[in-house]
Amino acid sequence: MKKLINDVSNILTESLDGFVAAHGDIIALGDGHMFVRRKVLKPGKTALLSGGGSGHEPLHAGFVGHGMLDAACPGQVFTSPTPDQMIAAVGAVDTGGGVLFIVKNYEGDVMNFDMAREMAGRDIETVITDDDVAVENSLYTTGRRGVAGTLVVEKVVGAAAEQGADLKALKRLGDKVNRATRSMGVALTSCTVPAAGKPTFDIGPAEMEMGVGIHGEPGRRRVALRSADEIAGEMVAAIAGDLGSKGNALLFVNGFGGTPAMELYLMYNAARAHLARHGITPVRSLVGSYVTSLDMAGCSITVTLLDDEIARGWDAPVHTPALRWGL
Amino acid sequence: MKKLINDVSNILTESLDGFVAAHGDIIALGDGHMFVRRKVLKPGKTALLSGGGSGHEPLHAGFVGHGMLDAACPGQVFTSPTPDQMIAAVGAVDTGGGVLFIVKNYEGDVMNFDMAREMAGRDIETVITDDDVAVENSLYTTGRRGVAGTLVVEKVVGAAAEQGADLKALKRLGDKVNRATRSMGVALTSCTVPAAGKPTFDIGPAEMEMGVGIHGEPGRRRVALRSADEIAGEMVAAIAGDLGSKGNALLFVNGFGGTPAMELYLMYNAARAHLARHGITPVRSLVGSYVTSLDMAGCSITVTLLDDEIARGWDAPVHTPALRWGL
Repeated sequence: MKKLINDVSNILTESLDGFVAAHGDIIALGDGHMFVRRKVLKPGKTALLSGGGSGHEPLHAGFVGHGMLDAACPGQVFTSPTPDQMIAAVGAVDTGGGVLFIVKNYEGDVMNFDMAREMAGRDIETVITDDDVAVENSLYTTGRRGVAGTLVVEKVVGAAAEQGADLKALKRLGDKVNRATRSMGVALTSCTVPAAGKPTFDIGPAEMEMGVGIHGEPGRRRVALRSADEIAGEMVAAIAGDLGSKGNALLFVNGFGGTPAMELYLMYNAARAHLARHGITPVRSLVGSYVTSLDMAGCSITVTLLDDEIARGWDAPVHTPALRWGL
Repeated sequence: MKKLINDVSNILTESLDGFVAAHGDIIALGDGHMFVRRKVLKPGKTALLSGGGSGHEPLHAGFVGHGMLDAACPGQVFTSPTPDQMIAAVGAVDTGGGVLFIVKNYEGDVMNFDMAREMAGRDIETVITDDDVAVENSLYTTGRRGVAGTLVVEKVVGAAAEQGADLKALKRLGDKVNRATRSMGVALTSCTVPAAGKPTFDIGPAEMEMGVGIHGEPGRRRVALRSADEIAGEMVAAIAGDLGSKGNALLFVNGFGGTPAMELYLMYNAARAHLARHGITPVRSLVGSYVTSLDMAGCSITVTLLDDEIARGWDAPVHTPALRWGL
């Protein structure tokens, strides 16, 4: 295993120490490395809290700041954060407007966020994201997985929270953005979890995993390497077919960590051509490695159908370590 | 070779098509894919032009926009752009204030930019970056290589150009930022150039290349894998020793393309501790994969000593595909 680390058991805390040192103008670290929170809170604003296993950076801690999340709870690599982390984060960021949890649909995450909601004794709602069209049930999920579309939910709901929407309205909006969003991924290589020390799955030099999950879970099937155009075509067909609507959209091409920007933009180019054939027009774009799987090579395509409310939320100012515009 | 591509000979043009489609609000593409230019020019402003082989994205095209470059000329992967590309770009962005070339110190790049300067018949100055302390001469250079510190030069000089500094002042500032900047890199794996189809260099599973270049050129030596702390210690010692000064600095930890954000932040944490021992205090930070080597795993550390002028230029608003703040 080749990684820039010291001791496998300290990766998360050392990385968080670096993260807060680099972005101390935006974020602060909770006691015991339990959560990352927005440095300056806005009293009375409904707080947005997310979290999940580490290894998907910049998701979620990279999206804490103005116009997006108020706190994020990082678990160990690919491991759910614990309810006590969430309860501590809720206590730190709830300034009276209640808290919205944004949770990717994995059994451990959903269970722990549910437990935290019951134990916290506060006004809390939960939006569960399940944008991955690849498979219906998976290694760690009942129902679909929540993947890169979670970023879009956090961004749009974060904008509305910043503008003063209340908990009930934010819950409605979060569910709506999730319903308007679909994703699918492809892996060319496996990731390597540091504590395991070896690749999560075996894959041949001429194979790829269509529909892979962000932890390296199996997708739809293992196939021979194909061209970017064919890969994008299959992913877009699955996404567009499942959306079942045409119109203007956000097209988000997300790298899994080991894929160069050149290839991501080439995939963006292929995806937009296929979307046009399905009557979907990308009018907003995001290209980069934002919801990663450690060092996995590959990418996902996410499409969110836009109405005025969602487009406004996407365009609104944001100031976080990993997404920043308009401020 | 596992890459998200169609035809090896079209990678650059297809990627540029995706790039301009995704960022059409900021940039425009020159005829024949010869250059990427800022969409809206500022008449009379001195234009900043950079370029180099592709495969280092987002450098340089990702830094075209308000407060940074006016145009970038992308060569084929790891291949210098040609003088006709540069001349076309100069013609497109020189609105009367002259043009500053910012060129990484590689023989092909320097030669072609020199030729373009002579042939263009315009008022042109050149800043050559050579921030890499790893080796004095290298595969493609006489003298030191220009690497990730080039981003810092482009950002600081870009801010001054935006504020109306003239060509002579920008040339002076660019040389000054380059002199205040040092970098060094380490590779854990090789990159794979698409046209070659196989890794650029062989490296064992327990080896790394200290002082690697951004094309996979040899560095100082091949050594056994070490801890992040030891790696950062050697890189920081080389950088600080060569700078020979103490004070406030920008610390930029740059991923080469295949390294997860978690590891980059962990390296940031290690580097800042070592810098403190050398009397250098990071007061500005950048962490991410900005000057890449295709899919190479590894990172570089760049340190720029800050005075008021350089800090002001770094902090100034920027609005490009890859760097965006204050706007």
